[in-house]
Amino acid sequence: MTQGGTRRIAVIGLGSMGHGMATSLQRVAEVTGYDPDADAARRFTEAGGTVMGSAAEAARDADVLVVAVVNALQTEGVLFGTPQASGAVSAMRANGVVISSATMAPDEARRIAARVSEAGPDYLDAPMSGGAGRAATGELTILASGSAQAFSRAEVALGAVAKTVHRLGDEPGTGAAFKIVNQLLAGVHIAAACEAIAFAKRLGLDIDKVFEVITGSAGNSWMFENRVPHILKGDYRPASAVDIFTKDLGIVADIGRATKFPTPLAASAMQLFLMTAAAGMGRDDDASVARLYARIADLDLPGMTPDRR
Amino acid sequence: MTQGGTRRIAVIGLGSMGHGMATSLQRVAEVTGYDPDADAARRFTEAGGTVMGSAAEAARDADVLVVAVVNALQTEGVLFGTPQASGAVSAMRANGVVISSATMAPDEARRIAARVSEAGPDYLDAPMSGGAGRAATGELTILASGSAQAFSRAEVALGAVAKTVHRLGDEPGTGAAFKIVNQLLAGVHIAAACEAIAFAKRLGLDIDKVFEVITGSAGNSWMFENRVPHILKGDYRPASAVDIFTKDLGIVADIGRATKFPTPLAASAMQLFLMTAAAGMGRDDDASVARLYARIADLDLPGMTPDRR
Repeated sequence: MTQGGTRRIAVIGLGSMGHGMATSLQRVAEVTGYDPDADAARRFTEAGGTVMGSAAEAARDADVLVVAVVNALQTEGVLFGTPQASGAVSAMRANGVVISSATMAPDEARRIAARVSEAGPDYLDAPMSGGAGRAATGELTILASGSAQAFSRAEVALGAVAKTVHRLGDEPGTGAAFKIVNQLLAGVHIAAACEAIAFAKRLGLDIDKVFEVITGSAGNSWMFENRVPHILKGDYRPASAVDIFTKDLGIVADIGRATKFPTPLAASAMQLFLMTAAAGMGRDDDASVARLYARIADLDLPGMTPDRR
Repeated sequence: MTQGGTRRIAVIGLGSMGHGMATSLQRVAEVTGYDPDADAARRFTEAGGTVMGSAAEAARDADVLVVAVVNALQTEGVLFGTPQASGAVSAMRANGVVISSATMAPDEARRIAARVSEAGPDYLDAPMSGGAGRAATGELTILASGSAQAFSRAEVALGAVAKTVHRLGDEPGTGAAFKIVNQLLAGVHIAAACEAIAFAKRLGLDIDKVFEVITGSAGNSWMFENRVPHILKGDYRPASAVDIFTKDLGIVADIGRATKFPTPLAASAMQLFLMTAAAGMGRDDDASVARLYARIADLDLPGMTPDRR
């Protein structure tokens, strides 16, 4: 199959990232989607997409299968089936490619890749960075590893969803490892942004001014610049949820224990996300860590009245 | 005294920041300097500067007194004297202005400002961000607060050392508060950068590639981009020392205890800087936190041979 031979792409998982990728992919191929969540499925139908009744049906005869679910367990269920549903790998073309985008431990990526290859298709370990907005505009950053053939077979699909594709090696697992390093930093930086803004509020500072000053100073981070506006607007609708980081920093913690490597900062940040989730904000925006500090210290952050904390 | 009336500027503290500011100030006024450290004093003399034998002598008849020492205690000693030396405030012009650049607690800034004002001169609370390189090129960012008269009297000097002057309010202490929020973030971000790079090394990744990928991803921070190259080169000569962050995160901790406000991430980062200092690297570059991880986990980071850890 040549690059131009990509005729059918299936996208399993139509949450915010999967939906954005699926709509971007519609520009280059025929796309079928599946999501067990009815709202997610309807949203793709309303965007002109074709939604099937199961992952296997969506994957039938697909050249490219994009798996956009949240973790390794769900990825494996989609690919190889569950007691309730048959798997997508056996339904797709044997000379196709699986593009796996969930953040997972490198060992999990290697294990799943081996199972897929044994069944026939190639496997591209391809976690991504950039958020739902960039998925929809085809401007994601992809951290990918896999064989030359896997990259070749995935090329049309990657080109449709990504602005930058980092080719990080020949072996699945390397993409996953780069992504988890990124998530360690991203998680610590979000929690630090929340701690710093709450601390500034405690000091009596104008936090809009703090945002302006810090974004031009050495204390800035990509996450500070991206998430603090949510706090300033008091808008905690989930662009990315607290539970994503309890999961991703949990993977960091698991790797740390398995390899005997201490990650005290990532561990502190994970505790903050866990506390925020425990306080009922797990599905809210990850900047909700600022609301945790505000509740603890009785601070008036924007949008937080005594009855709305 | 009008703005054009600034004739003599004294700079007390000729370490890397003070030296850079003093050389920038020489472009706009007659500058006299003082530093108790003979090497620092000689370096300014070699740069064509005039060095006096004490802070009071350097400040004699100065219109502007720049205090570029490391903390509130040293600032107070320079301004009001110690058992060994007389103070600079009584030597300078009574209608002059003190520009204080040390990072300190807001309460300390307010207390010192009150003492200076009582003695006659105005006081500008003016901590800075940007490092020695930008001090020398006159491109610092200044986080300043003080009266309109203090700003007016400091204007020529600030213009010579800074690219950006944030005017953060009429009261001393506000500049200090903004700076300490910046330092909370900067300290956490440096320690996180070191943790992430060491973790990446543990995962067997090419850390040069990690730098390239992360600086283009959501895990990036100003400090990651600035400090990780030190680790990649194995160059730990102090651009900014570990001990600066044990001090500045110590101020965060002090404020947290005094105001009953928890800062768990800043506390974790401080422990990492303290461990790095305890391991003998307090005067080395703050990216040495990466060497602490490497020693603990027996990693081969650049420049670290078994006998050079």
